[in-house]
Order: sequence, then C-alpha cells, then structure tokens
Amino acid sequence: MPLTLALVHHPVVNKRGETVVSSITNFDIHDIARSCRTYGLDRYFLVTPTEPQQWLARRIVRHWLEGWGAEYNSNRGEALQLIEVLATLDDVRRRCIELWGRPPRFAGTSARAQGGVLALEELRAMLEQPEEVTCLVFGTGWGLHPDLLRGLDFLLEPILGAGDYNHLSVRAAVAIYLDRLRGHVSKTP
Amino acid sequence: MPLTLALVHHPVVNKRGETVVSSITNFDIHDIARSCRTYGLDRYFLVTPTEPQQWLARRIVRHWLEGWGAEYNSNRGEALQLIEVLATLDDVRRRCIELWGRPPRFAGTSARAQGGVLALEELRAMLEQPEEVTCLVFGTGWGLHPDLLRGLDFLLEPILGAGDYNHLSVRAAVAIYLDRLRGHVSKTP
Repeated sequence: MPLTLALVHHPVVNKRGETVVSSITNFDIHDIARSCRTYGLDRYFLVTPTEPQQWLARRIVRHWLEGWGAEYNSNRGEALQLIEVLATLDDVRRRCIELWGRPPRFAGTSARAQGGVLALEELRAMLEQPEEVTCLVFGTGWGLHPDLLRGLDFLLEPILGAGDYNHLSVRAAVAIYLDRLRGHVSKTP
Repeated sequence: MPLTLALVHHPVVNKRGETVVSSITNFDIHDIARSCRTYGLDRYFLVTPTEPQQWLARRIVRHWLEGWGAEYNSNRGEALQLIEVLATLDDVRRRCIELWGRPPRFAGTSARAQGGVLALEELRAMLEQPEEVTCLVFGTGWGLHPDLLRGLDFLLEPILGAGDYNHLSVRAAVAIYLDRLRGHVSKTP
C-alpha cells in the first residue's frame, strides 16, 4: 500500500544523451511535494549524490518546516515534510525496508517508453495490495539514464496527449501520473 | 472545438483575501505552455494588466522563439508560440472573436468550488461541439477573485486528491485538468 516517489538527479541524460548530474530545482521541490501531499503519497525522495545539492535541498525544506516559511504558509510545510533527501535509489530501497519492512517495487517513467510497459490502470489496481511498497521513479534533465531504467522492476506507459508532442515538464508529468493512479475522477450523472 | 486557457494575474486574491496583481512566474510560462502544447490547445493567454509584466512575458517568449533559446531547444518554442499576452479577459473575448468568429465560453476553476459546478466529463463531451470556443480560466496567487468567478459562464469541479489537502500548484492543476479533458487514458486489457 505505501506509495512513494523518487525524483532522480543522477544518472540522467542531457539533451545530447550524455550522463549528467542535474541540479536541484526549487519548483520541483514545491510543486511535486504539493502533488504528493494531495494524492496521499507516503514519501517524496529527492535523489542526488552531490552533497552541496543535498545540503541545499534540506535547507529549503527546513525553511518551510521551521523557518519563517512555516509561519507564512503552513500548508507548504505539510507538503514538504514528505521529503527525504537521499543519494541513490539503493538508499531509497534501504529506507523503505526501514520504514515498511520490505523493499519497494520501482516503477520507472519515461516519455519515450515503448513496448513491455505497464498500463496505469493495472498499477492502480496493484496499489491496492496492502503489503506492497511502490516507488514511482522520475528523471530530471532529459530523463532517466537507460541503464537505470533497465534495472527497475517495471516501466509505466508514457503520458499521451492529443498529438505527438511529449515534452511535459517533470512537474506536470508527476501531477498527471498521480491523478491517474490515485485521483477520483467524477462521472457524468 | 477551439480550446484555450487563460492564466489570470488580476484580479486574484492573496492569502489574506485581498485583491492583488500577482507577478508573472517563469515556470508558469514554460510548464503551462508545454502542457497546453501536449494536449493540443489552441492558445495560452497570459493575462496581466501591468505593462512591465507584459513586456517581461513577451521578452521571455521571444527568447525561445527567436533568441538563442530557439536554437538550444526548439521544442520549447513549439510550446511557447501558443502564448499571447493580454491585459484582461475582455481582451481574451475579443481575441477569440477575431480568431474564430465567436466569444469563448469561460470555464472557471477553483480549489474551493462548491455546488453548481460542471463535471469534467460533461465539459469533455461539450468540447466535441465543433463550433464552440472554450477558455479555461486559472488564477495565480491564492486564486481568482470571487467577483471574477461569478461573472464566468460556468465553474468546473475542483480536483480532488486522496484527502482534504487541496493546495496543488497552478501548474499541476492545469496539467491534471487538461489530462482529464483531453488525455487518452488507457484501459486494462
């Protein structure tokens, strides 16, 4: 049942397909934490191996939990308290075992995913299994490195819009995935 | 059939309920343009009465359409070319008449909407009517001013997550509304 999300900053690729470490982005912290809180996720893992970037992320989170940000807008802290800053997906695995007694199933996302992907309706049903822990994995930059993607438990279908343009921001993609997995879509009466 | 979106920076309210003009946010420009392009919208209107803010928004858009941004990432220009910067919703109305020969139906959004709201499934069906023009209206800051909301043609149901936390970013809310209105949700086989 526990559902978590990991935003990965390495290994990801840049526009030329090179492996890079991407930077922490303030809007990724806020927008994605707010979406995670809205859809009842249990943790939002910010994954970067770079210590100064880890420090920065923790500093921003602390501002909204304990600094004057907490007083200015307490809703924000409610969302940002879901965040844990970790170095790698192995750390995410260890942390999930600590929290829930078992490793997560890692579900990768990619705008370019083809073949052998899991339909979101299928994952939505799987999320009801009470004992399973799931971690949705999103990449920054131009997306997760292919080697990392291959090592995950499964790959989710990409979000399709109205045409063949598939350059959603990671913040928008997260919002849409969470809504499809956990949203209560009303029906016409 | 034409579907457009307006992001309104005035009149909106701040956290104390006061009427304010909010600032143009760079991430609102990019994320929302990319979501609009993905879901095949016809225009993305940035609505602010403040001339320096209009200038700033146009300057950013031009960078990605004509500046070195166009060379660095042409996908971005493809999204940002949907943007038109206008002062008021009256200007949006006039512009739609210019483009499509009729005024839009304005559909308001609010995280606090209650009673008398239109279900998204219903609007999804209405969007198929070939001659109608629709404009989804989103507010920045703490949301659209109540007087503005009351003047719109209808109010859409709010996005419900898993609990009662409803503080999505406007960028996430736009992504989810567009997916519910225009996305192709796959079914389990």
